[in-house]
Amino acid sequence: MQNFIWHNPTEIIFGKDTVKDLSPRLKADNIKGVLLVYGGKGTFKSGAYAQVTEMLNKAGIHYSEVNDVKSNPRIDKVREGIARIKAGGIDAIIPIGGGSAFDTSKAIAAGACYSGDVWDFFEKKAAIEKAFPIYGVVTVSASSSEVNGIAVVSNPEKESKVSMNSPLVYPKVSVIDPSFQITLPEKQTVYGGVDIIAHMLERVLDGDEGSELIDEQAYTLIRTMMRVIPELIENPKDYDLRAEYALAGVMAHNGFLSVGRRTRGDFSSHRMGHSLSLLFGVPHGASLSVVMPAWARYLYEENPVPFARLGEGVFDIFDGTDEEKAIDAIEALESFFKDIKSPTTLRELGIKEDDIEKIAANASKGQTFGVLADLEPEDVLEIYKLAY
Amino acid sequence: MQNFIWHNPTEIIFGKDTVKDLSPRLKADNIKGVLLVYGGKGTFKSGAYAQVTEMLNKAGIHYSEVNDVKSNPRIDKVREGIARIKAGGIDAIIPIGGGSAFDTSKAIAAGACYSGDVWDFFEKKAAIEKAFPIYGVVTVSASSSEVNGIAVVSNPEKESKVSMNSPLVYPKVSVIDPSFQITLPEKQTVYGGVDIIAHMLERVLDGDEGSELIDEQAYTLIRTMMRVIPELIENPKDYDLRAEYALAGVMAHNGFLSVGRRTRGDFSSHRMGHSLSLLFGVPHGASLSVVMPAWARYLYEENPVPFARLGEGVFDIFDGTDEEKAIDAIEALESFFKDIKSPTTLRELGIKEDDIEKIAANASKGQTFGVLADLEPEDVLEIYKLAY
Repeated sequence: MQNFIWHNPTEIIFGKDTVKDLSPRLKADNIKGVLLVYGGKGTFKSGAYAQVTEMLNKAGIHYSEVNDVKSNPRIDKVREGIARIKAGGIDAIIPIGGGSAFDTSKAIAAGACYSGDVWDFFEKKAAIEKAFPIYGVVTVSASSSEVNGIAVVSNPEKESKVSMNSPLVYPKVSVIDPSFQITLPEKQTVYGGVDIIAHMLERVLDGDEGSELIDEQAYTLIRTMMRVIPELIENPKDYDLRAEYALAGVMAHNGFLSVGRRTRGDFSSHRMGHSLSLLFGVPHGASLSVVMPAWARYLYEENPVPFARLGEGVFDIFDGTDEEKAIDAIEALESFFKDIKSPTTLRELGIKEDDIEKIAANASKGQTFGVLADLEPEDVLEIYKLAY
Repeated sequence: MQNFIWHNPTEIIFGKDTVKDLSPRLKADNIKGVLLVYGGKGTFKSGAYAQVTEMLNKAGIHYSEVNDVKSNPRIDKVREGIARIKAGGIDAIIPIGGGSAFDTSKAIAAGACYSGDVWDFFEKKAAIEKAFPIYGVVTVSASSSEVNGIAVVSNPEKESKVSMNSPLVYPKVSVIDPSFQITLPEKQTVYGGVDIIAHMLERVLDGDEGSELIDEQAYTLIRTMMRVIPELIENPKDYDLRAEYALAGVMAHNGFLSVGRRTRGDFSSHRMGHSLSLLFGVPHGASLSVVMPAWARYLYEENPVPFARLGEGVFDIFDGTDEEKAIDAIEALESFFKDIKSPTTLRELGIKEDDIEKIAANASKGQTFGVLADLEPEDVLEIYKLAY
């Protein structure tokens, strides 16, 4: 097991009717004005927006808004938020939503304390030294952004969807009321679930021995998600299922599953998925269910062990050589994605074969990346071809 | 799933040669003088004492000591530490050890900020309002005291071994270097392991539906411990096994397994075990392997479900009615304790049948307790008789 530091300072307030519990915390921290950051329809439909604004009104805290934040959020919304804060009167940020609202808020939180352009953080040209506090309200569990310091933002001008990461932008408090997710469309439940599973897979498939305990926990969490998603498709209004899903979202990416590993995981599939989202607006989860199986098929022969262990731990595949178990596991994963109607080919996404080179170039940017195996630009191209 | 708040502020620094990483943290927090709290031999033999004092000397931080803290730590050592701090010059406490050193430190940390007698916190006559910061170094994983706000202390005058609990006494930092545990005697590895398993069992056996996800995680953690303890008996110097054990210790009692449950768990077995430790000096883990199976046998017929689920989740017992699965699970647990040579009867502890009434009276103190089922004083007596 590798040495590690594990410190997750976010306070999670989880359960029904918990938005009101933000009020005493905001007061205790002497917050007088907040910036609400959210998308649109879903925030209202879930009831979250009404509860947050009612809580703020009762507490006498005024608020300003950045809204219409889309999935795969863009840097222009971040800049809009930074300008609002720099105009004064705001002490904290309240994202209402999922990864997009939280990630946008984190970038605003850091960018508002910085004299240069916020994109510098994403290009690693500047380090985050200070940030406004974030008190978030989750209406979509998928990214786990509510319990980590990561923000992924797109910059269309630069054709780039990349991340920044800092302990300073962990939400101070995250309210997770699973009732808000009862109104989510099925597609979003499915894609969010794929994202959660991908975050778990990207740990156990990094090729590092890490910790058997953590691998076992991850396999069990993946099994939980594979049980919960199909049940939720049948019973989307079941509170307990929504709660299990939201809690799995917390565990997927709060640092726990990286404990004891050499790296924080192999996020190659995320990187390759980001290009599909950026160039073709593919929903994040859908991009992952397309890329991950292809990535796995491309690599398993030279790296059968992590896939074989996955087969044993998640799919009860105990027969055969490691290589045989590995391919059986990959097929089982792919057929799970098909069962929950998440796409597994570029073709299903309406992407043309001619576009593959452009997509591959966007993902590689001329660099080699990957943890389980180094992916040269030509490997990346092959993986997208396999995904076609 | 029940609503919950999950907030664990402790920073865990885990791995080889990590004591030195305390130095920059102590400096950043402007700590000039510390109180070391530890037991004896083991602290020196593990190498932890030498590393901590070397780190402090290099950092120019002076230290004072409370040593000879025994297992089942006593209130007199707490009072000694409080007197030291009240004499001045100390900004923080560094426990070096396991639950005893950490629990003593927590009580000192709170008691030194209080004008009355520290035992008031244990008798719930006063609330903890302030505490000195704790930067701990773990040499024995068992209690999980390094990642929670609980302290269990004995008061022989009052024939009482009870706990206090406050978010203010969570260690600010806990250094867990599993190498320190390589020198632990086998008995301590076994008893510590039983304590860790008990903390997990006390969650899943509380009779609350809670969260299936958490139950699944707990079952998997119990399996991990049941794999690791026998392997450690064979290979006590294996670093990775010590690390898995220490990490399981973190997960057992850092709040995670209580998430979504009605209560924080049913700690009846702990309460009944404490009386054995207090009155007969029984090692904490040994008291638990005696009491838990008896407690389970006494209750399972009226409450078969949690035991049956445990049988499925941990012991692959899938045949029969819930009642049949339950008794099979209890027998499997008991035979695991026997396999690792942890006692399962009062007789093995050298306790006489005549002492049972006194022990039961000490545990009950005339009160009813328990979560899975209410235990009246006569129930407690029957459980001890079953354990005989």
